[in-house]
Amino acid sequence: MTVFAKIIAGSIPSHKVYEDEHVLAFLDVGPLSRGHTLVIPKEPAVTLDELSDEAAAAIGRVLPRICRAVKNVTGCAGYNILQNNGSIAHQVVMHVHFHIIPKTSSADGLGITWPTKPIDHDDAKKLAEALRAATVAPHAASG
Amino acid sequence: MTVFAKIIAGSIPSHKVYEDEHVLAFLDVGPLSRGHTLVIPKEPAVTLDELSDEAAAAIGRVLPRICRAVKNVTGCAGYNILQNNGSIAHQVVMHVHFHIIPKTSSADGLGITWPTKPIDHDDAKKLAEALRAATVAPHAASG
Repeated sequence: MTVFAKIIAGSIPSHKVYEDEHVLAFLDVGPLSRGHTLVIPKEPAVTLDELSDEAAAAIGRVLPRICRAVKNVTGCAGYNILQNNGSIAHQVVMHVHFHIIPKTSSADGLGITWPTKPIDHDDAKKLAEALRAATVAPHAASG
Repeated sequence: MTVFAKIIAGSIPSHKVYEDEHVLAFLDVGPLSRGHTLVIPKEPAVTLDELSDEAAAAIGRVLPRICRAVKNVTGCAGYNILQNNGSIAHQVVMHVHFHIIPKTSSADGLGITWPTKPIDHDDAKKLAEALRAATVAPHAASG
């Protein structure tokens, strides 16, 4: 059972920001900046590709509202949404979570490195075709 | 008019991955890794806090499906979702966009720095109360 499942169950306390039938949001206990908030589905999926369409839609629907609250209450000039999938991609707690990370200066909040590469258009054409074909089939579990 | 508005309008070509009434996904032309995909609302909001609940829910609903396609087609071990709001937070194109960035090794994909700080629980308690109060009011424009 992950620490987030325990927070949902109420067996570990949290600084709760928002809750509805599908979604819980609370302050990160290891914040990158003041107001760093985690938004999680109550459905216990490890990575976003395993989450049901319904739970993902419920998170999407409330993200703008929670972002407005974070922006208005903290007064941050900008913010990043980050959602990590897999240990290789820096995921630590194995329950889907979206970070909302206020950014008030270059010194606080999320730092990113952006080693962009030129696109290979011939490969990209084939890759996009394969991705289009793959997005046609919905998830077996979520319709 | 942003480059993404031009892609939606079809006046600039793209390697299209997915499209429905509310959402368009296509390959990033400056990829961090093979399969780096952008998912955008057709609604022209600059930052996520300005997006309607309906458009945000539509993106949320299709994100798992597009992530499954990226994972299955590229074979990546993990991936990051990143959505930047404001120039200070590394936003370059002023139209909401979610990056899906495959991660196959520590050398490719998104690099992040994570300067975590200890939480001040007294401040966090007050901050969470203010955020809970602020999330009660829905967006005037989106009900």
